Amino acid sequence: MSLGEFELIGRYFVREPNSCGDQSQVRLGIGDDGALLRLPPGERLVVTTDTLVAGRHFPLDAAAADIGWKALAVNLSDLAAMAAAPLALTLNLTLPIADEHWLAEFARGFWRLADIANVPLIGGDTTRGPLSVTITAMGCVEESVALKRSGAQAGDLICVTGSLGDAGAGLALAISSAEWPHISDDDRAYLLERLHRPTPRLLEGASMRGIASAGLDISDGLLQDLGHLLKASNVGAELAVEQLPLSEPLQAYAAKSIATRQQALRWALSAGDDYELLFTLAPERAHLLPTMRYTVIGKITPAAGLHLTLHGKPWEHDGHAGYQHF
Amino acid sequence: MSLGEFELIGRYFVREPNSCGDQSQVRLGIGDDGALLRLPPGERLVVTTDTLVAGRHFPLDAAAADIGWKALAVNLSDLAAMAAAPLALTLNLTLPIADEHWLAEFARGFWRLADIANVPLIGGDTTRGPLSVTITAMGCVEESVALKRSGAQAGDLICVTGSLGDAGAGLALAISSAEWPHISDDDRAYLLERLHRPTPRLLEGASMRGIASAGLDISDGLLQDLGHLLKASNVGAELAVEQLPLSEPLQAYAAKSIATRQQALRWALSAGDDYELLFTLAPERAHLLPTMRYTVIGKITPAAGLHLTLHGKPWEHDGHAGYQHF
Repeated sequence: MSLGEFELIGRYFVREPNSCGDQSQVRLGIGDDGALLRLPPGERLVVTTDTLVAGRHFPLDAAAADIGWKALAVNLSDLAAMAAAPLALTLNLTLPIADEHWLAEFARGFWRLADIANVPLIGGDTTRGPLSVTITAMGCVEESVALKRSGAQAGDLICVTGSLGDAGAGLALAISSAEWPHISDDDRAYLLERLHRPTPRLLEGASMRGIASAGLDISDGLLQDLGHLLKASNVGAELAVEQLPLSEPLQAYAAKSIATRQQALRWALSAGDDYELLFTLAPERAHLLPTMRYTVIGKITPAAGLHLTLHGKPWEHDGHAGYQHF
Repeated sequence: MSLGEFELIGRYFVREPNSCGDQSQVRLGIGDDGALLRLPPGERLVVTTDTLVAGRHFPLDAAAADIGWKALAVNLSDLAAMAAAPLALTLNLTLPIADEHWLAEFARGFWRLADIANVPLIGGDTTRGPLSVTITAMGCVEESVALKRSGAQAGDLICVTGSLGDAGAGLALAISSAEWPHISDDDRAYLLERLHRPTPRLLEGASMRGIASAGLDISDGLLQDLGHLLKASNVGAELAVEQLPLSEPLQAYAAKSIATRQQALRWALSAGDDYELLFTLAPERAHLLPTMRYTVIGKITPAAGLHLTLHGKPWEHDGHAGYQHF
């Protein structure tokens, strides 16, 4: 790896080992041709990578600290979705100009989350070009307890962590506040935070090791991501719309009218960007997750296809048929 | 990892496991939230990553197959420079439009080298945006025989694989052929190939395990990269300019005049992009590398700084003092 002509890594991204995540597995960090990592005995390496491009994944004028946080969050969320523990990160940052204020802010957001996840940065590069961020996250997990998309069985409960639809609502708020004349400052801040600073569910993912039968993170929207799980597991599902977990701010919005209720459900079902974990669980194993907060939203069926229900009856709404075939 | 809206990975980058490199360590490939890799017992994971941006690392109209090859080559070269065996790759491809011809060509160049190195692609994403390629290469090596930049000792021989300056000459050729009125088609093809399709010295790197005392790959130019090694090892060096290995095409160019000889040496010393390995070797260990082709170009000295010599006498040429302090 090269420092690039900006040599920015040195200033913002190389930190003292003792203030840069859990270094116990890092045998050689930034500064050589590659980093050397140890893998705990008996564990597998988990690798995931995502690129965020300005104007596509975030607005050109997005706050740099939010970009730093979110670029890391979407990758750590993939580790969480494999039930993996974070091990190390690499960061490839492409920037049109070496703007020190922007960089300091980006680094602040990046390190805020990296510190929370206790994960070290072991390499990467900085290059001049149109703004984009690629992060590769490495983690570890025992293979037998890794959370895969395949593995869901008929009869399993379908569960989600946290609440759904907040990021969709946050995006609508960020684009235009016109629909939200009476929203409180707290609710606005909450929804924007959920959009810009998603929480990778690392603890929840780790708690499910050997307990959940399948799982992934919700990046594209509940329906689409559930579709991926159903396809990989070769099963179908019934989803109880009334059980979708909505946050208090989104419940307040949904309570205003039939139209806002429909909109809130649309965000919860399809908007994506929530980075909650969607997982399946045999009912007899539910007692093994006593302290984790999650919501049961449906169950796995043997026949392919997804049925949406409202209080047990088939449910359709605009844009979403009550039945989807994957 | 997400397939991105183009869903291109499926068409060009997902291959049958039996035609996609050594899969023996891959427990779960493309298609879940992350890939699962095994690491051979007792070995360390080596991680390196580099981003190539259009208009910066390659011309906007560069041949797509060459971009695919070179983006991979520069990363595999970093693995070689750690004496690591390639284990797996991820590829993040950002493209302005989904041009099928371009993609097919890019994939052809990428897979040509991936097949030679016998390394599988285990993840990545495709995104719409300004053209750039990020590859993360993972490899493995026993920690005690990994080739680091530190470790060179006074008295060690300074060695390089292959020949130097070809990529610099190739770049000059690619920009303007005016200087090269009488070059043969074969020589032209050779120099351009060395620029566009560098060979990562994986076999050579592996051969040096436990034998070379320090090493890195020459990406920024011999003088600059040797400087990195000297700094990391806290030593100095004497470099014998007359011993720099020049290829036959570059020797033919150098023989034309004093000016072309100076230019050839300038490329060999400073142009970079050759991706040969630069390494140091205790003289008494040289017999342990009986079959590997390399050239001794100098020796490590206890005092810091780099002295260039020509047949034993201090040597200076335009732009490069005979002595450099790092």
